[in-house]
Amino acid sequence: MANSRFEYVRTFERENILLPQTHIVIRVDGRGFHKFSDFYEFEKPNDKLALEIINKSALKLMQSIPDIIMAFGDSDEYSFLLKKDCELFERREFKLITTFASTFSAYYQFYWNQLNHSKPLDIDRLPTFDARAIVYPNNINVIDYFSWRQADCHINNLYNTTFWTLVSKGGMSTKEAENRLIGTLSADKNEILFTEFGINYNNEPEQYKKGTIYVREVVDFPLEKYNENPSEITLNRILKRFKKTEIKEYNCDIIKEKFWNDRPYLFR
Amino acid sequence: MANSRFEYVRTFERENILLPQTHIVIRVDGRGFHKFSDFYEFEKPNDKLALEIINKSALKLMQSIPDIIMAFGDSDEYSFLLKKDCELFERREFKLITTFASTFSAYYQFYWNQLNHSKPLDIDRLPTFDARAIVYPNNINVIDYFSWRQADCHINNLYNTTFWTLVSKGGMSTKEAENRLIGTLSADKNEILFTEFGINYNNEPEQYKKGTIYVREVVDFPLEKYNENPSEITLNRILKRFKKTEIKEYNCDIIKEKFWNDRPYLFR
Amino acid sequence: MANSRFEYVRTFERENILLPQTHIVIRVDGRGFHKFSDFYEFEKPNDKLALEIINKSALKLMQSIPDIIMAFGDSDEYSFLLKKDCELFERREFKLITTFASTFSAYYQFYWNQLNHSKPLDIDRLPTFDARAIVYPNNINVIDYFSWRQADCHINNLYNTTFWTLVSKGGMSTKEAENRLIGTLSADKNEILFTEFGINYNNEPEQYKKGTIYVREVVDFPLEKYNENPSEITLNRILKRFKKTEIKEYNCDIIKEKFWNDRPYLFR
Amino acid sequence: MANSRFEYVRTFERENILLPQTHIVIRVDGRGFHKFSDFYEFEKPNDKLALEIINKSALKLMQSIPDIIMAFGDSDEYSFLLKKDCELFERREFKLITTFASTFSAYYQFYWNQLNHSKPLDIDRLPTFDARAIVYPNNINVIDYFSWRQADCHINNLYNTTFWTLVSKGGMSTKEAENRLIGTLSADKNEILFTEFGINYNNEPEQYKKGTIYVREVVDFPLEKYNENPSEITLNRILKRFKKTEIKEYNCDIIKEKFWNDRPYLFR
Repeated sequence: MANSRFEYVRTFERENILLPQTHIVIRVDGRGFHKFSDFYEFEKPNDKLALEIINKSALKLMQSIPDIIMAFGDSDEYSFLLKKDCELFERREFKLITTFASTFSAYYQFYWNQLNHSKPLDIDRLPTFDARAIVYPNNINVIDYFSWRQADCHINNLYNTTFWTLVSKGGMSTKEAENRLIGTLSADKNEILFTEFGINYNNEPEQYKKGTIYVREVVDFPLEKYNENPSEITLNRILKRFKKTEIKEYNCDIIKEKFWNDRPYLFR
Repeated sequence: MANSRFEYVRTFERENILLPQTHIVIRVDGRGFHKFSDFYEFEKPNDKLALEIINKSALKLMQSIPDIIMAFGDSDEYSFLLKKDCELFERREFKLITTFASTFSAYYQFYWNQLNHSKPLDIDRLPTFDARAIVYPNNINVIDYFSWRQADCHINNLYNTTFWTLVSKGGMSTKEAENRLIGTLSADKNEILFTEFGINYNNEPEQYKKGTIYVREVVDFPLEKYNENPSEITLNRILKRFKKTEIKEYNCDIIKEKFWNDRPYLFR
Repeated sequence: MANSRFEYVRTFERENILLPQTHIVIRVDGRGFHKFSDFYEFEKPNDKLALEIINKSALKLMQSIPDIIMAFGDSDEYSFLLKKDCELFERREFKLITTFASTFSAYYQFYWNQLNHSKPLDIDRLPTFDARAIVYPNNINVIDYFSWRQADCHINNLYNTTFWTLVSKGGMSTKEAENRLIGTLSADKNEILFTEFGINYNNEPEQYKKGTIYVREVVDFPLEKYNENPSEITLNRILKRFKKTEIKEYNCDIIKEKFWNDRPYLFR
Repeated sequence: MANSRFEYVRTFERENILLPQTHIVIRVDGRGFHKFSDFYEFEKPNDKLALEIINKSALKLMQSIPDIIMAFGDSDEYSFLLKKDCELFERREFKLITTFASTFSAYYQFYWNQLNHSKPLDIDRLPTFDARAIVYPNNINVIDYFSWRQADCHINNLYNTTFWTLVSKGGMSTKEAENRLIGTLSADKNEILFTEFGINYNNEPEQYKKGTIYVREVVDFPLEKYNENPSEITLNRILKRFKKTEIKEYNCDIIKEKFWNDRPYLFR
């Protein structure tokens, strides 16, 4: 064939197959969303409509890729958990991460247009996302990963809530607010909100404090019949009988064990 | 800090830094574009407007990322050449490929909407692209890479042109046309087009036969003063004086050496 | 400093850190041992002294690297299991595998000289070993890995025993013996040995049929007090109290679960 | 076959193929040679016999692996350059580095025994080496790599020569000598040697100052007929006619360009 003398160039291709039998997490992350949110005049500290757009994008991705069994997101990022025996793209890393980045960006633009955020998208300010894959060998790592992201959400939201309250209600410049918060602990920020502005941070919306969780739940999973830590063989036997699944949305605590104990099938 | 006991999960992250001083090629490739082109009723064998959309996307990407010095594309794919000393994202592979995949998809959707192709995009049929990076240690590999893609473009276009002529002008079903072409060589397809349909393949549009090339050309580069293969030091010295660049579009032959000899700065 | 302008060459170094919290197996494998065993006139099918040399080398390696908790070997290969939380060389793959290859080769040459095998080593026929690392995310994979190697040992030994019996007692040439065994199953080989030569394969030495196992056993581990599958936290708590270990040698079955159930600490 | 149900464990194996058309350098490095040289009472700053042992090992390795075209070593390390189109072990990294580590260690032990260094080897103090591979895309990187190692040799030897002179001739303790040298530049050390001990460092043996170089030289290579930087095609055409090679030993300067200009075939 005419191109055969050039085809040797394919031998320079390299690819990474994600280790079998590990839990794959793929995290997509908005590129330059600080400037993006300024340009499109996001409400601070949280823009309800922008969160709806990113949540819908995550949900749609989860609906279109059955191997995703859980998602957690806040601000401009989302983490997706794939089941341990996932064989999507034969676990080829480049295919997985570029497909997630591309598809998530596509949904985001689509929903942005559909939901009519602030103004039409500008070609020089399109929403884009990078993506990375991480593999975890065991359940505890997975729980800790999502705990890490939820703790991060909390810390950022407390900071942002206090910062923007100082600005919008306290009349500070952003520079002044920034300086005011240097070196403060969580307790200090709670105190500022409560004492100076009468805001009880605990009463802030759960979505902002805890992020958004989507779980592909097994309908009627007979949890009570099994101990909370079934062996893999037992679990797979159960799941063969309880195949029906449903994606549910939560804004609950995923750092506490209960969330995970109630859903052993997340570690299938 | 509250999340520190979880932060160990970051030690599971792995990343690949592309080897320094190698030419990076990133190829984006449409995902499921066979179905996509059916769904949006692309003209066959080539859809002029769809090509305009993908070309505009590639050009826009090249304008927004100065490290891209050349691009070649046809059908639903595009290859981008980055300069050898590119330090974009510190050459971190995951950042590069997911950013290319995401941004290219974003441009494509944007231009699709702007140019009003056949019908509005359907949420279940959005245009998405995967992306991979390949590194090449020397100039010859780079020339051979692009030659490989252009030869591939030619082979596919000759096949598609013959196939769709058999269908649209020859009254064959797609199955019949497929069978007719099994085992045929290029010469046979040229002959079918010419004898049976009076079509001289050589007269087909250059864009379809050769694909589209964008080159970031150095304005007034004094080629005549230097041999065609300047040393790297010489080349960099010249380029310091001739900094002005301009992106040009071509549909020319890039398999022949002339294209490359005329533009030694592509190997900087 | 004088060499600083060259030091950039270090940026081309790449290294792979083995994924944390996975079980590392390192397998060393004799290079060209077919020719090696011919040259030094090994007894066939098993050379008792050569096995003693390789076993002593494996045992010595295990004594010098406490992170090795188990080893299995036969013929010219040995597999070493490192504990899951091993931090030797910060899990850098190149350090681990080249150190194992180098050290194992060094011990082998040393013991060869000490035990006076057939003849002094020839500079052009020194014993050398390559080495590779594989990581496994869970216990079952580890059990299956060692089962794979023991099954392989059995298959090879049955073949070799039959082959060399055909040659030494059956008067066949090696070519004739090879042809005789093409397409035979295990049952066929057992039958040949028994019917034609009165040899009951089951009575062959366990070492030859099962290979050699070294285990770093926890002295007085209170197995009866715990179920066979203690959680990691429980296991580590126990191991803090039972720290004394002892390397034991076996030629037993490691495909059956009992071996592993009796030693849950192998999965620490 | 009996072991097939376990064989899936092979899918966990990963390997790295070194990028084609790059120069491969493999560096072996003594493990714990500081203690090793104390234990076997090496002469300081340079042990002539130990250098002979490591040099013979390097030469022997080069003789047994034709793909090695150059080697440079000093102290307890050696770097080997493989030709660019080397296909040894299909460029599989683990095979290359573990084979080099293992074989080099085997030669070292062999020659140690043969040349009767200080005392017989102790099982707990065997000479072992780790090994790493680095790939370089172009000639300049290769020159800079070896320049880096030679500059390092010089710096270390000047330090060690001064240090041990202060101890052996100056009557200092090692601690005192160490303190004396803190913060000194090369010029200072030269001065100490000359003024205090009448030693002109320039007159020290070239082997100690420059290290040892082995080159697989092309016999009768017609250098004068070609410019110093022949194209790859020209070079390969020449080399087809001048196939005869010979390994030569040097202690010359490899930082200056002349060494490389005289031997363009090192970059084949």
